Amino acid sequence: LLSVKSMSSLPYDFEVDRVVSILKEREYKSILVQLPEGLKKYATRIAKELREKAGVRVYIYGEQTWGPCDIPIDEAKRLKVDVIVHYGHLEHHGCRLAEHSLPLSALSKERRPHVVFIPARSRASPSREHIERLARALAARGLRRPILISTAQHLHLLDEVRGLLEQHGLEPQIETGAGGIEGLVVGCDYSSLLESSSKHDSVVVVSSGTFHALGASLITEKPVFQLDPYSGEIRELEEERKLWLKRRYAAILRALRARRWAIWVGAAIGQYRPRLVEHITKLVEERGGEWYLFYSRYVTLTELKNCDSPEIDAHVITSCPRVALDDFTLQEYEKPVLSPGEAIMALTGSLEPYRPIW
Amino acid sequence: LLSVKSMSSLPYDFEVDRVVSILKEREYKSILVQLPEGLKKYATRIAKELREKAGVRVYIYGEQTWGPCDIPIDEAKRLKVDVIVHYGHLEHHGCRLAEHSLPLSALSKERRPHVVFIPARSRASPSREHIERLARALAARGLRRPILISTAQHLHLLDEVRGLLEQHGLEPQIETGAGGIEGLVVGCDYSSLLESSSKHDSVVVVSSGTFHALGASLITEKPVFQLDPYSGEIRELEEERKLWLKRRYAAILRALRARRWAIWVGAAIGQYRPRLVEHITKLVEERGGEWYLFYSRYVTLTELKNCDSPEIDAHVITSCPRVALDDFTLQEYEKPVLSPGEAIMALTGSLEPYRPIW
Repeated sequence: LLSVKSMSSLPYDFEVDRVVSILKEREYKSILVQLPEGLKKYATRIAKELREKAGVRVYIYGEQTWGPCDIPIDEAKRLKVDVIVHYGHLEHHGCRLAEHSLPLSALSKERRPHVVFIPARSRASPSREHIERLARALAARGLRRPILISTAQHLHLLDEVRGLLEQHGLEPQIETGAGGIEGLVVGCDYSSLLESSSKHDSVVVVSSGTFHALGASLITEKPVFQLDPYSGEIRELEEERKLWLKRRYAAILRALRARRWAIWVGAAIGQYRPRLVEHITKLVEERGGEWYLFYSRYVTLTELKNCDSPEIDAHVITSCPRVALDDFTLQEYEKPVLSPGEAIMALTGSLEPYRPIW
Repeated sequence: LLSVKSMSSLPYDFEVDRVVSILKEREYKSILVQLPEGLKKYATRIAKELREKAGVRVYIYGEQTWGPCDIPIDEAKRLKVDVIVHYGHLEHHGCRLAEHSLPLSALSKERRPHVVFIPARSRASPSREHIERLARALAARGLRRPILISTAQHLHLLDEVRGLLEQHGLEPQIETGAGGIEGLVVGCDYSSLLESSSKHDSVVVVSSGTFHALGASLITEKPVFQLDPYSGEIRELEEERKLWLKRRYAAILRALRARRWAIWVGAAIGQYRPRLVEHITKLVEERGGEWYLFYSRYVTLTELKNCDSPEIDAHVITSCPRVALDDFTLQEYEKPVLSPGEAIMALTGSLEPYRPIW
């Protein structure tokens, strides 16, 4: 009872009881728990609970994870675990990154290891006052029809936010998002914002980090407001968008002259995108250039520097658009390091609109 | 002809012609080239040669590699390449780390992807003068019977070194080393030095980095001389050994009080060591302690910090003894981070001799 109490005092709902009942029902004996970086510090607490309540052997996956695209299926096979419990994301096998990979839904039904997704909903909630402040900020800018989006952790807040904004005479929208899930945004898929563009005049992102809000701002070029569910803080992304665009375009423009391209192919299960790789190699060849293929699960500055050579003019990271944008914008590198969409912009000379995602 | 000339001007022999003939003979169409960090900068040159001469599609593996224990078999399957060409190490499937894993020799004969090991022999060679200086340094210390060891890159130099030392009246020895290969040393297997201990009074390590020389010094407690084949420099390891031992024992002694252990299980094919993990969990339980299992291909300070929690007192990295020794000795961490042998020393209270490797 004490430990139940302690889990419910954590800022996220790890749904231990639901996981325990799945483990018991299917008679699973060993599991691999995967958590994104911000949630990893709770891993030992979760492991202890699951071990004690379900009698399973628990492995905690130590490597970084950014989405349902990098589930360690092969690695889990070596461990012979029955199931991977992935925290922090929803299964969205319709996502663009997964289209060339094995469908995770098939894996979770027919093959071992099975995969269970637990969103780890945040218990944080913006106050009525914070949402009212958001309503006033929108109204002050003459914005009436914001589209509301959020990440797996905070998605359950959207209804409440919509209700309060409606009380203030606004017409907030929630559209089908990434993976067919209402309101969901992921870093590799903002297509719902573009597809429903005529229906809204602004974007409200309920999330803690600025990553998704910045992405929405870069891609829609509409006013974007981030509502932080922890602090209640409201932030407009315009200044950050300008800085970011300047830096991204600087890299794209330098890449216009690149002849020899390093094309990084993703080794994670949902980040292996052979059709995209093929498309980029063709574009490079059409321009009379040369390409080299690198294959890696992660691309940090370390991998990039180790593999770089005088025979390379520019890098494109095909695995995930987050890598080039998030890790190589504020951090300087002597050569352009581009997302897939940016590389295609440079290779085709189509510099507008800014479309970093393929 | 120009490009042949340029490959032969490189400081390592990448045996491009031999690789090309293997690729052509077996009609391989696509390959994954894997190189350790120091050799990665030649990757694009090698890729270009192989592409032009053998008509194959070449992927360069972007992640770090430290030995034949982390061949990316599963990742290569996703790429559907025919063969992995691994540069910089020799196949030594007898090595301790591989004993719980699939034998690579079986993989290389029967399954795809096949694996080909190319040592990437260095073209550097110490001069006669340098070896004579080594002979005098040994003699000055009254040492007559050094055992000679080296890494895959420089192993071919041992015969010459032995010959010159013999001319100076010494009795150098070369014993069967790691994986049954004459004179070979690897960071996870110094057993040949211990087994033949009565036959030699000192160790000569022909290598560039100090890693293997330091390992030999820590484990044998005999005078160890490193001969750098690039600079010809001769270095005795005594001071470094003292510093290292002090730091390693500080970590081991702190771990004597540890009750809750994080046991890191290796996800690389030859670094998954379930028997070792079982042994350590038993030792922890016998002392009334608790353990948590983490599973990861790499363990750097990033993974360690992300996964650490107040429920953990000490870490042991079972994948490879290099990680704790090389990455967590000079770099401080607030908790003990131990190699397998060190953890067993702490858990059993057997503090002598210093045996970091299991």
